[in-house]
Amino acid sequence: MSMYVVGHKIPDSDSICGAIALAYLKNQIGEPAIAARLGELSPETAFILEKFGFEAPEYKTSYAGEEVYIVDHSEITQAPDDIAQATIVGIVDHHKLGDLTTSTPLECWIRPVGCSNTVIKMMYDFYQVKIPANIAGIMMCAILSDTVIFKSPTCTTADIRCVEALAEIAGVEDFKEVGMDMFKVKSAVEGTPARDLVMRDFKDFNMNGNLVGIGQLEVIDLAVFDDIKADLEADIAKLKVEGNRHSVLLLLTDIMKEGSEMLVVSDSADLTERAYGKPTVDGRVWLDGVLSRKKQVVPALQDAFQKV
Amino acid sequence: MSMYVVGHKIPDSDSICGAIALAYLKNQIGEPAIAARLGELSPETAFILEKFGFEAPEYKTSYAGEEVYIVDHSEITQAPDDIAQATIVGIVDHHKLGDLTTSTPLECWIRPVGCSNTVIKMMYDFYQVKIPANIAGIMMCAILSDTVIFKSPTCTTADIRCVEALAEIAGVEDFKEVGMDMFKVKSAVEGTPARDLVMRDFKDFNMNGNLVGIGQLEVIDLAVFDDIKADLEADIAKLKVEGNRHSVLLLLTDIMKEGSEMLVVSDSADLTERAYGKPTVDGRVWLDGVLSRKKQVVPALQDAFQKV
Repeated sequence: MSMYVVGHKIPDSDSICGAIALAYLKNQIGEPAIAARLGELSPETAFILEKFGFEAPEYKTSYAGEEVYIVDHSEITQAPDDIAQATIVGIVDHHKLGDLTTSTPLECWIRPVGCSNTVIKMMYDFYQVKIPANIAGIMMCAILSDTVIFKSPTCTTADIRCVEALAEIAGVEDFKEVGMDMFKVKSAVEGTPARDLVMRDFKDFNMNGNLVGIGQLEVIDLAVFDDIKADLEADIAKLKVEGNRHSVLLLLTDIMKEGSEMLVVSDSADLTERAYGKPTVDGRVWLDGVLSRKKQVVPALQDAFQKV
Repeated sequence: MSMYVVGHKIPDSDSICGAIALAYLKNQIGEPAIAARLGELSPETAFILEKFGFEAPEYKTSYAGEEVYIVDHSEITQAPDDIAQATIVGIVDHHKLGDLTTSTPLECWIRPVGCSNTVIKMMYDFYQVKIPANIAGIMMCAILSDTVIFKSPTCTTADIRCVEALAEIAGVEDFKEVGMDMFKVKSAVEGTPARDLVMRDFKDFNMNGNLVGIGQLEVIDLAVFDDIKADLEADIAKLKVEGNRHSVLLLLTDIMKEGSEMLVVSDSADLTERAYGKPTVDGRVWLDGVLSRKKQVVPALQDAFQKV
């Protein structure tokens, strides 16, 4: 029986490239594995896969009765809906420890680094499996994406060394240029429906019993949102009602200015005041230096919900 | 600030030796760490520490405001009572994934092997830190204990290779003899109060909302229990009431015959029938081939509780 290797809902490049890279590794060490995905590819991920010659992993949402290796999260809300009917055989991740549990022993490769693919590189090293050039390429891109080309505070020395090593294997001379090309693809938001943009990188979190959805769009210039910000705001308000969420936050991240404008709809009027010490004015708040949802947005929010 | 490295409540040899071994490793890689424990040493663990010249780790039950590296579990019920007020920086374990969660990224070294110390050996290898002979000795003993000298179904090739390597570092010629010496110490139950025996290796589990306590005593001949079995049964009945538990199970494991007699007090009269296909008769049931609480007792029980 093959295991499925699958990332989170609304997959980002780390989830997709990680599933492909880890499935390849598992097959090499005699554990049959199939890369899968829970949703559509983002334009960024499609760009990466095309650049290095990969098809999208199998689209599969139901895993009851299957063995599953989870990539890039350990949260029930981000996992397949029927994960409780599956057997989780492993988790590779770089986030806080979530609420997934198992009834049998498993392997967890979780490290406080910038990207799951950095951890997957450690797995290749552990098993002494050679990384093919094209897999090195997509792993490198996933790390450049998650670390915002090393600008994110989540970026560690391990991520940088890992990108350097992978670039060499992939035969990429200027990996920063590849990174900028990716973020240019990400910045092309014109003509895309608001809902598609909001959902492009959207995660739900269970915060002390409250459902909180947080989306993020990383671009090289926030001016691309000038004409559509009102649409985005209307859409997250809808999303809050539809999902019976306590709050929906959308981070518009300027990777060159290195900060984020947060669009906020919430049942708590003082949410950003309590979490970040900055009030929400007309549904918006600028968070200087904030690039990372994981490290700079979620923990403070979680603490704010604990104190409610 | 030093982190504390601490195993589970009612510590076994894996928890104690693992805390010492991991704290040493962390200090070697420039992360100050202090080994700690949540309870008294078992006679087996005291025997191991004395044999290799170690003091018991610091006895410490409160960790609010501290950084904690968790050893040998990922369960709230087995962690320090105030773990929610601490920062979990890492987990090294070999059990099912439990219900501990964090609000910040951490490292998890979890593998489906026979002992946490086997995983800690992998950490030494990863960081390329030399294991001192006396630390190799206690790590080796912890693995021999958890794997019942390789007889347990939880034992993997990795555990066996690890013991072989550690025995060489420790300068131990016949590690199986050391293992039998440990189990002889474990088998000396005469004169020990029933409560002390029941609690010697006792873990509480949250099974679908029900608190289930499971103790285990591993000996080289079940005859040592002939005169005290009634006392043990009276004590687990008391323990059930005191802790408001759904069930308390005590495994009397014969490591030579390779099976366990389970003493049962439970709110469900048909619990062992549903979990193991064998009815409890007069509060007792023989489970042939059962040596491992983790692999042979807990999962089936958890499934039985899911189906209630």
